[in-house]
Amino acid sequence: MSQNMRAAIIGATGYGGAELIRLLQAHPYVQITSVISTSNAGAPLAEHFPHLQEVVVDILDALDVELIAGKADVVFLATPAGVSAELSPKLLAAGLKVIDISGDLRLKSASDYEKWYKKPAASEEALARSIYGLSEVFGDEVKGSDLIANPGCYPTATLLGLIPAVKAGWIDPSTIIIDAKSGVSGAGRGLSLTAHYSEVNENLSAYKINKHQHIPEIEQALSRIAGKPVVTTFTTHLVPMTRGIMSTMYATVQGEHSTEEFIELYRQFYEGRKFVRIRQQGKYPATKEVMGSNFCDIGFAVDERTGRVTIVSVIDNVVKGAAGQAIQNLNIMQGWDETTGLLFAPVYP
Amino acid sequence: MSQNMRAAIIGATGYGGAELIRLLQAHPYVQITSVISTSNAGAPLAEHFPHLQEVVVDILDALDVELIAGKADVVFLATPAGVSAELSPKLLAAGLKVIDISGDLRLKSASDYEKWYKKPAASEEALARSIYGLSEVFGDEVKGSDLIANPGCYPTATLLGLIPAVKAGWIDPSTIIIDAKSGVSGAGRGLSLTAHYSEVNENLSAYKINKHQHIPEIEQALSRIAGKPVVTTFTTHLVPMTRGIMSTMYATVQGEHSTEEFIELYRQFYEGRKFVRIRQQGKYPATKEVMGSNFCDIGFAVDERTGRVTIVSVIDNVVKGAAGQAIQNLNIMQGWDETTGLLFAPVYP
Amino acid sequence: MSQNMRAAIIGATGYGGAELIRLLQAHPYVQITSVISTSNAGAPLAEHFPHLQEVVVDILDALDVELIAGKADVVFLATPAGVSAELSPKLLAAGLKVIDISGDLRLKSASDYEKWYKKPAASEEALARSIYGLSEVFGDEVKGSDLIANPGCYPTATLLGLIPAVKAGWIDPSTIIIDAKSGVSGAGRGLSLTAHYSEVNENLSAYKINKHQHIPEIEQALSRIAGKPVVTTFTTHLVPMTRGIMSTMYATVQGEHSTEEFIELYRQFYEGRKFVRIRQQGKYPATKEVMGSNFCDIGFAVDERTGRVTIVSVIDNVVKGAAGQAIQNLNIMQGWDETTGLLFAPVYP
Amino acid sequence: MSQNMRAAIIGATGYGGAELIRLLQAHPYVQITSVISTSNAGAPLAEHFPHLQEVVVDILDALDVELIAGKADVVFLATPAGVSAELSPKLLAAGLKVIDISGDLRLKSASDYEKWYKKPAASEEALARSIYGLSEVFGDEVKGSDLIANPGCYPTATLLGLIPAVKAGWIDPSTIIIDAKSGVSGAGRGLSLTAHYSEVNENLSAYKINKHQHIPEIEQALSRIAGKPVVTTFTTHLVPMTRGIMSTMYATVQGEHSTEEFIELYRQFYEGRKFVRIRQQGKYPATKEVMGSNFCDIGFAVDERTGRVTIVSVIDNVVKGAAGQAIQNLNIMQGWDETTGLLFAPVYP
Repeated sequence: MSQNMRAAIIGATGYGGAELIRLLQAHPYVQITSVISTSNAGAPLAEHFPHLQEVVVDILDALDVELIAGKADVVFLATPAGVSAELSPKLLAAGLKVIDISGDLRLKSASDYEKWYKKPAASEEALARSIYGLSEVFGDEVKGSDLIANPGCYPTATLLGLIPAVKAGWIDPSTIIIDAKSGVSGAGRGLSLTAHYSEVNENLSAYKINKHQHIPEIEQALSRIAGKPVVTTFTTHLVPMTRGIMSTMYATVQGEHSTEEFIELYRQFYEGRKFVRIRQQGKYPATKEVMGSNFCDIGFAVDERTGRVTIVSVIDNVVKGAAGQAIQNLNIMQGWDETTGLLFAPVYP
Repeated sequence: MSQNMRAAIIGATGYGGAELIRLLQAHPYVQITSVISTSNAGAPLAEHFPHLQEVVVDILDALDVELIAGKADVVFLATPAGVSAELSPKLLAAGLKVIDISGDLRLKSASDYEKWYKKPAASEEALARSIYGLSEVFGDEVKGSDLIANPGCYPTATLLGLIPAVKAGWIDPSTIIIDAKSGVSGAGRGLSLTAHYSEVNENLSAYKINKHQHIPEIEQALSRIAGKPVVTTFTTHLVPMTRGIMSTMYATVQGEHSTEEFIELYRQFYEGRKFVRIRQQGKYPATKEVMGSNFCDIGFAVDERTGRVTIVSVIDNVVKGAAGQAIQNLNIMQGWDETTGLLFAPVYP
Repeated sequence: MSQNMRAAIIGATGYGGAELIRLLQAHPYVQITSVISTSNAGAPLAEHFPHLQEVVVDILDALDVELIAGKADVVFLATPAGVSAELSPKLLAAGLKVIDISGDLRLKSASDYEKWYKKPAASEEALARSIYGLSEVFGDEVKGSDLIANPGCYPTATLLGLIPAVKAGWIDPSTIIIDAKSGVSGAGRGLSLTAHYSEVNENLSAYKINKHQHIPEIEQALSRIAGKPVVTTFTTHLVPMTRGIMSTMYATVQGEHSTEEFIELYRQFYEGRKFVRIRQQGKYPATKEVMGSNFCDIGFAVDERTGRVTIVSVIDNVVKGAAGQAIQNLNIMQGWDETTGLLFAPVYP
Repeated sequence: MSQNMRAAIIGATGYGGAELIRLLQAHPYVQITSVISTSNAGAPLAEHFPHLQEVVVDILDALDVELIAGKADVVFLATPAGVSAELSPKLLAAGLKVIDISGDLRLKSASDYEKWYKKPAASEEALARSIYGLSEVFGDEVKGSDLIANPGCYPTATLLGLIPAVKAGWIDPSTIIIDAKSGVSGAGRGLSLTAHYSEVNENLSAYKINKHQHIPEIEQALSRIAGKPVVTTFTTHLVPMTRGIMSTMYATVQGEHSTEEFIELYRQFYEGRKFVRIRQQGKYPATKEVMGSNFCDIGFAVDERTGRVTIVSVIDNVVKGAAGQAIQNLNIMQGWDETTGLLFAPVYP
């Protein structure tokens, strides 16, 4: 259980990379030794992220596996789809631990990946070796692993909100409807009309209805928990704010269970896991209440008129939905307390 | 079919009142003859709304039924819950036509009103006399009426999105789930922490889950269309933007109907009604695309994997969800073309 | 004074073009007969602007001077820098009237244009022929002209706020400092990191300090009014909102003049000009109070401690700062009332 | 130099209080032992700030000097104007160190306080004893003090941007014009139409021109540095964002000094002070680049055409403009490194 670890970040000029830098800077056991960008190697990091001026003075490294192996013990991949599939095996072969924030290694089925991502999948070996790092649920498998597929932002909020009820058999998995909403940072730093300020500001839009690549990721995990195939209705919305994801989830309750009982079920399920906070009856979490932090807050409302439960789950998509959970997984891999370097208050207001 | 009408606006210092003024100013057949505020009578309107300086130079009138009857032919009520229940009968008795933007006259059942609004209901006579003015659906009843209960903002977006499918029997009413989202102007101009900038900005929250007073209004209309009681799951969210409502609605499809067929069904249902625009396959409306206008835009996605349809409906809550539809109803009442004074393009971006 | 005019819009897929369409749609004497886009000809306009679906059903025309001449009487150019310099002479030669929203024809000095715009200037003939259309100040020259250089957004707010005081000799032109702020729509619809939502939202930045291409435009007009060369300090800021410009202007008062006297001076200067509204003492205009409208609102504060006056001027950059003033100039050119089709209330909130 | 300190926070249910809690939680030497609210004593803190649920589990204490003296070594006052004037002497008498975030103790002249704050001033003794804690400039006086008047948000950004140039005699103090802009959190958590979402969102407004209570605070410090009375022109604007202050400052350069020379002057002045970051030529800081952090970033542009320098200075008003600098002052008072617990990266995006 070494408490001294050198980390490299690939994709350091994107938002996931920037957040890894912010969070790792505050981590007591980790030192960032290389920030890497394929397209901008040689430039100072602060040229791309002026907010890091005099915080991280490094020059961006090129992507060179051998060089990384000499400088780092663990590599975080904050790269676009398709990169990790090719790169991860090489990094592993060089003796590095790998935590992949992209979606390349999350789906165990190569054909599912190719269907939803429209790209060639990673090797079967890589897919088999990778551990799906939903920390609070699959943390036992993360421990000791050297290749983590870090969950997507929507799946993190959604699965933490659904799994205890599915596992307990309190909701009928075939009735699950997920109405998800995200801030714009989830779209990354790449330019598009979809993320153009004057188009997004003061605007709420729905997109990729039933077509989002996070659907198979959610269904894969739910099916595993339910012990049978689960298909879901999943809608994503773009909300005019930078950070935050909310999943509002609906399902038919099986048996008679009150809101209070749901709250108690979840409190027990997440006992000792500091990053999941269950709200009391009549209170629902708001995205700003987790902003900048690694928390996932969840609230419940059972409706006796319809026999359905509504579950509201929120995270900061860049933290618990990406960089924060990645570091939480590193903590678990290394046998450190999972909250190491991550237990700070949200930024409010 | 007089083309010259004098209008009074009660509640002129709220957002609904301000929008009535903006829209009526552009109406060729209507002249605003009195702007009324109980709490601010005697002050110039522009003191409360500087944007109206030199546009409407009027001094705010006190609320005096006799005075109104001498000045106006029609009265718009943009008042808090409870006011119209008492006031409308007096205005009618004075020979005025009344269009009520508040919720006081929408529920035919007095006990429903008292349960959801926690206030005494209007008289049975008033409730019986009032017409629920969802223009595109109940316009025939609006014609010739002198007391309109103008629909709520959430119900307008929701009902226009659901009624054609419910009427055609294409969706199972018992499976309807409504995930609604609103901009902050829906909360009005009254101060509250819920509408305090630093609390709402960069924040998405869920509120009043299954408890919103628009639920019985939606269910009353759906039940009437379905010919049997309908109960729904209804969640409201507050989105960090000023204007706009989106209802994302889910239901199980009855029979086999594709997205294209839903589109065609709705196009036929709304044929000749210019304010409802149906999107083509694969396109979903965004709130900004109706901003400042009286349009309601609707899109569809049938998912073969789950057998459900997702319907997305957007309006500007202050226009089609309040002042705009109120004027549309006036047009219909008077036998004018329903688009008179209202057929302008949304403000974009 | 024909009251029937056919208009073509070049650059219809940008924000300036969209606003021209919105406003001309409401104009009683003008009919849009061609919407033109060099890059997207053949596509329906609504594909680029879904908010215009069923409002403007036209297919985008290619840019063909002869075709335009057959269809239109007046052409609005909402094009990037460099286009109008070449195109305007051809349109004039084809007998069309031209109103150019771009900056190509505003600077009388070709060398100034080339210095600040880094592009070849228009022909001397075109520069000589064009009239700088600051409607309230140079309207007499606009009348009867066939080539209008429509003022820039910053210059409009700034010049309307400064000219009466400069003309009266009440402020020392050599002390003028202009601190200007703009919403993001001023950057147009072209993609850039500067207009990327997650970069701009919740962010205030200064840019192009003393280097903005609107500086020579402002100085040219001020120098003309002052009768001697005027140089100014000019800073531009990007504000996280879509529409709106505010110029906060500072200058040393010459002679003794109180706030009240400034207010009176401006009220007299703009007497009868409905689009300029002067605020009373102690009140300053906010950008939202002119949103969506053609108003320019101005407020004043003379500080006896420092001997300076602070002048605050606001406009909607897309309306009075572009499309609205362009139509106001068309009205003036044609001898119509300058407010024709433009005198509607701002959208609030 | 004890490295173990107990802190109490008075005014814990406001934004300043919440930020003190967030930051002190991450401080290695300080433990929060009491969170105090006069109006809400007895309630759990998380009831007022759900984002702190399970982070700070404390019940709000009532305001009781004796009780505080038993629990804490230092008290932070995040209270409205008027409270600290009365309370600070009692806390000092009880042996506590006091850091006052309010404006009560900043002005040495009681009559200035009463003129600008319209309230009775603190005792002359308290005013004499308090140290104005602009850390980078007056840190030597902070050391060893037990009563700190923590600078206001506008003065912090402004003074850090002006003092080196005034001290060096490079700018003429009589020409200083300060155009300041703030996010809405500066208005606090108290309800007002000014901070009502639908009024502020998509809106930029100017307020309190030449009347803001931070003017005498700025002038007091500048006069001290200049060695002669300095009066300034000062405008404040409200920007539609939650956090962030920018001061854009203008002055006539004395002597010949280029932008590069200004940059060098400031780099030397702030050498070793990690929280002030000077931008390179042609770059200006944006508020988001310091969001959530204790940095103050400054950029410069000398304009040869006008002989003026434009200085742009940004801070997070809640951190460097309030809670962050308060803790920085505690660090200095205690002889700890001033960056202790405060040297983390901004939250971006």
